[in-house]
Amino acid sequence: MTPDGSRRAYDGKLIAVTVERWGEHEREIVEHSDSVAVVAIDAERHVWLVRQFREPARKELLELPAGVTEEGEDPRASAQRELREECGLRGGRWSELGRFWTTPGFCREAMHVFLAEDVEPGEPEPEDDEDVEIVRWPVGEIGARLAELEDAKTIAGLLLYVRR
Amino acid sequence: MTPDGSRRAYDGKLIAVTVERWGEHEREIVEHSDSVAVVAIDAERHVWLVRQFREPARKELLELPAGVTEEGEDPRASAQRELREECGLRGGRWSELGRFWTTPGFCREAMHVFLAEDVEPGEPEPEDDEDVEIVRWPVGEIGARLAELEDAKTIAGLLLYVRR
Repeated sequence: MTPDGSRRAYDGKLIAVTVERWGEHEREIVEHSDSVAVVAIDAERHVWLVRQFREPARKELLELPAGVTEEGEDPRASAQRELREECGLRGGRWSELGRFWTTPGFCREAMHVFLAEDVEPGEPEPEDDEDVEIVRWPVGEIGARLAELEDAKTIAGLLLYVRR
Repeated sequence: MTPDGSRRAYDGKLIAVTVERWGEHEREIVEHSDSVAVVAIDAERHVWLVRQFREPARKELLELPAGVTEEGEDPRASAQRELREECGLRGGRWSELGRFWTTPGFCREAMHVFLAEDVEPGEPEPEDDEDVEIVRWPVGEIGARLAELEDAKTIAGLLLYVRR
């Protein structure tokens, strides 16, 4: 299925907006790179989360380590790169927990969520504008601490993990 | 916390883009109305889902009934209106299952997810551009059918429900 017409309405740095015509309807669509998130579990059975200030929410949120897939990059390679940069975590046994559209009503962002077990700590390699605090939760506490989470991918990813 | 500067970069119908300056960094933020989704369970213990074509994904997706909160509208009232319009469901016992940012890295959309139990079937009142197929799943099958879901709010909402 493809639209009957399409025009670029906004061209930004990380996002763009396309207006597509489908029959009689027009649809505004936010274009965003595909993205990845990781449920990373270390040898002590702790899950690694990152707390960072999120401008759209105007507050700090606790989230799975995540990022965008670079042009031509394999999603798993992207997730491994993000996990190393944000948390310094390396290695581990990798599998896919799920994939979903983050907001399919208006945004073309598909996200892969990976599980990385037995990851090994190392030095983070944060990007310039990343100011991230690492938070570790014992896996057994995830269920009781869900109320601390306010991010959709983090709730979905951790619940997909605990029900395995 | 508020930005040091802000300018509107795009003004659309359902979305807008703001560029905010926070210290030395600029952040592109998609502005979108707050939204609601509902895990609706009927007296026969079926959950109601909607299948509809999603232009950003260019395919049909199976999702929780959902929609945007209108100006000044209470989230629960919004959810009740959406459930009536999309599914024809009325009444029921309502509670909040969760609330989260859908994509806090670049979008200012906060979503409330409600649980509506013992809802009563009636006539849907679809809007002009809504072409929605109703799908009902026995509650006991949710876990086994997760792989059919490709939408973040639906995965998060149903998993929040089944773990209660």
